[in-house]
Amino acid sequence: MNGAQSLIRTLVDAGVDVCFANPGTSEMHFVAALDSVPEMRGVLGLFEGVVTGAADGYARIAGKPAATLLHLGPGLGNGLANLHNARRAHTPVVNVAGDHATHHKKYDAPLESDILAVAGSLQGWVRESHSTADVGADAAAAVAASMDPPGRVATLILPADVSWGDGGTAVAPIPPRKPHAVAPGKVQAVAEVLRSGEPVAVLIGGPACREAGLRAVSRITAATGAKAFIETFPARLERGAGLPTIERLGYLAEQATHQLSGIKHLIVAGTKSPVSFFAYPGKPSDLVPEGAQVHTLAELDHDVVGALEALADEVAAGVEPVLQEARRPELPSGPLTAQNWVEVIGALLPENAIISDETNTSGVLLPNATAGAPRHDVLTLTGGAIGQGLPVATGAAVAAPDRPVIALQADGSALYTISALWTHARENLDVTTVILNNSAYAILRMELQRVGAESSGPKANALLDLSKPDMDFAKIAEGMGVPATRATTAEELAEQFRAAQAEPGPHLIDAVVPPLL
Amino acid sequence: MNGAQSLIRTLVDAGVDVCFANPGTSEMHFVAALDSVPEMRGVLGLFEGVVTGAADGYARIAGKPAATLLHLGPGLGNGLANLHNARRAHTPVVNVAGDHATHHKKYDAPLESDILAVAGSLQGWVRESHSTADVGADAAAAVAASMDPPGRVATLILPADVSWGDGGTAVAPIPPRKPHAVAPGKVQAVAEVLRSGEPVAVLIGGPACREAGLRAVSRITAATGAKAFIETFPARLERGAGLPTIERLGYLAEQATHQLSGIKHLIVAGTKSPVSFFAYPGKPSDLVPEGAQVHTLAELDHDVVGALEALADEVAAGVEPVLQEARRPELPSGPLTAQNWVEVIGALLPENAIISDETNTSGVLLPNATAGAPRHDVLTLTGGAIGQGLPVATGAAVAAPDRPVIALQADGSALYTISALWTHARENLDVTTVILNNSAYAILRMELQRVGAESSGPKANALLDLSKPDMDFAKIAEGMGVPATRATTAEELAEQFRAAQAEPGPHLIDAVVPPLL
Repeated sequence: MNGAQSLIRTLVDAGVDVCFANPGTSEMHFVAALDSVPEMRGVLGLFEGVVTGAADGYARIAGKPAATLLHLGPGLGNGLANLHNARRAHTPVVNVAGDHATHHKKYDAPLESDILAVAGSLQGWVRESHSTADVGADAAAAVAASMDPPGRVATLILPADVSWGDGGTAVAPIPPRKPHAVAPGKVQAVAEVLRSGEPVAVLIGGPACREAGLRAVSRITAATGAKAFIETFPARLERGAGLPTIERLGYLAEQATHQLSGIKHLIVAGTKSPVSFFAYPGKPSDLVPEGAQVHTLAELDHDVVGALEALADEVAAGVEPVLQEARRPELPSGPLTAQNWVEVIGALLPENAIISDETNTSGVLLPNATAGAPRHDVLTLTGGAIGQGLPVATGAAVAAPDRPVIALQADGSALYTISALWTHARENLDVTTVILNNSAYAILRMELQRVGAESSGPKANALLDLSKPDMDFAKIAEGMGVPATRATTAEELAEQFRAAQAEPGPHLIDAVVPPLL
Repeated sequence: MNGAQSLIRTLVDAGVDVCFANPGTSEMHFVAALDSVPEMRGVLGLFEGVVTGAADGYARIAGKPAATLLHLGPGLGNGLANLHNARRAHTPVVNVAGDHATHHKKYDAPLESDILAVAGSLQGWVRESHSTADVGADAAAAVAASMDPPGRVATLILPADVSWGDGGTAVAPIPPRKPHAVAPGKVQAVAEVLRSGEPVAVLIGGPACREAGLRAVSRITAATGAKAFIETFPARLERGAGLPTIERLGYLAEQATHQLSGIKHLIVAGTKSPVSFFAYPGKPSDLVPEGAQVHTLAELDHDVVGALEALADEVAAGVEPVLQEARRPELPSGPLTAQNWVEVIGALLPENAIISDETNTSGVLLPNATAGAPRHDVLTLTGGAIGQGLPVATGAAVAAPDRPVIALQADGSALYTISALWTHARENLDVTTVILNNSAYAILRMELQRVGAESSGPKANALLDLSKPDMDFAKIAEGMGVPATRATTAEELAEQFRAAQAEPGPHLIDAVVPPLL
């Protein structure tokens, strides 16, 4: 078999059987080899940011990596923003970045670039395959590296001649490492903090944001009176009726400071001590209240859930978690507002849904409206690089074809990777996209004030304004093959959302919502 | 003044008075400062690839750099592909990439990334401003570096606190270096080659692709019988009636090999010795015929046009250049084909047009159809990173508001930076976009065969197919505020193209053209 065939066979043997692809000439042998390995599914994205974001969303739901196929340095560059988000989500991703043939690189052909620098910027795992005989072993190493706790972006650079050369062999998977056990005594030490009588908060992230971790934390807070928070942007958060509801730490430093005020101890598990998303003149970056002590129960590459369960058994033996009751908002009526659109979603969210949430300012009131909805997963914007929502929804839908995927998407952010809609149509994915169309970079209007910028004249305002012209996302979606409607009232949104749920396949609703602020 | 104000004032004083921007929170002081420097124009792009491609197109026409405003490492990453094209075009670009405040970086906030690695991959000029007092000098250095012959991408990293801090000063421009003079004796040595009686070809690129260079080369070929070619993807090529018509070297190695066959000497000026765009199994990367000698008359950072003029005076004293006669194709009729759409453009190209050409396979027959059209500029895909055409058209139209800009755009490539259309509408740019909609990555279908890939099964073919669903670019354009129509016959294309020229502002024609191959 050639290098490409050995690569794909090795990936499939390691459980990596979906490849989100945007290939070019140097990847043609990989493309041709897809037909020789029936288990591998190729999913075309029309821009690399779609491809990499889809791989992120896929792995968050599937619990195993997808491959990407990218065209040289510029293709990897186009995929970089959503790989940044994947890195922050600790998502396992296996990039296959094609490169020029080894003997061609010295000619500095037009597409030659410093692909190693671009790949290296992701601070994950990078390797270049130097010979066809190595490709299988390199691919097996890439998969293992991607899944090494807590998960990372692995990039395998595949020169065209290494791909087309003969003499490849499939290599057996390398079992991924298990998370480290938490050091003996750590749980007891943290338990002492909880028993101290001083105000304590527990901040969880990563794998703790799923049922087992949430139940353990709920037991701890029920037994000790500690506060508990979820990291601001979890990769995958399980929520809804029957699960503990735990508040997320706010995006704005002011919110987080308020949430943490008065605590003397912060116990951290599966995430880092909280810091401000951006710096602001005269405001601290570290959000831990002055004088409070931080206690790390479990780093991200440790057995976070096991540590929380052990802590719960220590301080909350026999105590049950507090579970969210089923409750939904009433269906609202009247023109859409930042307040009522979330009630429509809360009222109508289907069973077992996956929400890809890139609502930014428009979604501030969403968590409360959906807290008692049927159990669902929420995938958030982990790295702050906008343009993640539609691609992540793509990958989630590929990973879970039997679950409804709801992409709640801010208008400005949608434009970065809008062609994800075409992939929704191509693959007939059951994704309902709701665009929160407020014709502004609303979050930047707020940030312009928050950073203390002196003036806010017409030129500044024009750069934050998405009207003139207003966008019609229903037309854009139809142009890409996704049936679409426009809603301006709560009744229309409810009717269109219900209709989208009733029919399989992708739909888009352009929900015209005034800015929150 | 604060750092941002000193930066913008310094840029304006150096002649950089357009900033293509896609800002975020860390850039809010720059945004606010725009209103304090009236000469600076801010142009919003809804994706960084639009911003960087527009800066490339702007400078190709204006002959001076634009600034970009990008949001941290991920924003620079999103702009990387079109900066790669700008690098290959030797276009001066001044990136202002915002970064976290210097005191915030150690907290590894979600948007923290290795911005220096990403910027460094462009192999241009990179500097981080360390204090507000330095910003003016850093900005002046960035402009000078960008214009240092032959031109490059300069990236100034601007931490938020350096931007918002007080104590900035505007710094006077640094005069850019002049191109090196060609070494004494070089012109005479190359003249001897032309007089040798052996078969010679002259290959020109860079600044030689404009009127003065073309006239000099035409005189040389008229006097000596040498062949002449233009590099495959010139940044800016002047063409049309009244100028010498010189053939471009073909994209396919087979074409170029045929064009250069039989030559014993290749004289190179303003470009590099030709190499194959990609490697193919068993085919050479170096396109110079075996046994032929390469003579470099002028490197790109030398006075290329001066050297060609001196050479013409040496070998062609008194000889006039051969100028293209005015001629246009007849207007064709019938269903659109790869053959007849170019005749419509050739027949109707307006006076003094700028063509942004990303037609890929659909445009193979374009050069002949437009050779005798009124004088125009052609901007080509210099670095092979697709998604350049619509952004470059954006920047060209900002640089030359009095010239009609024609974006001839392949469908697959259009999707990478499709939101450029919104900027066309926002700025009311006189850009007529013609999408060559063949529902395929047609170039990759050809490349799949050319690389000798063994199979071409259904999974491989699906990754090269843009149908299922077909895209409706007229709807996409209307969704972004650009009036649009669809043409399926030559008559419709002609009528719609004429109508678009008759009315100022942006238009899009979705031209449904079967694949060439």
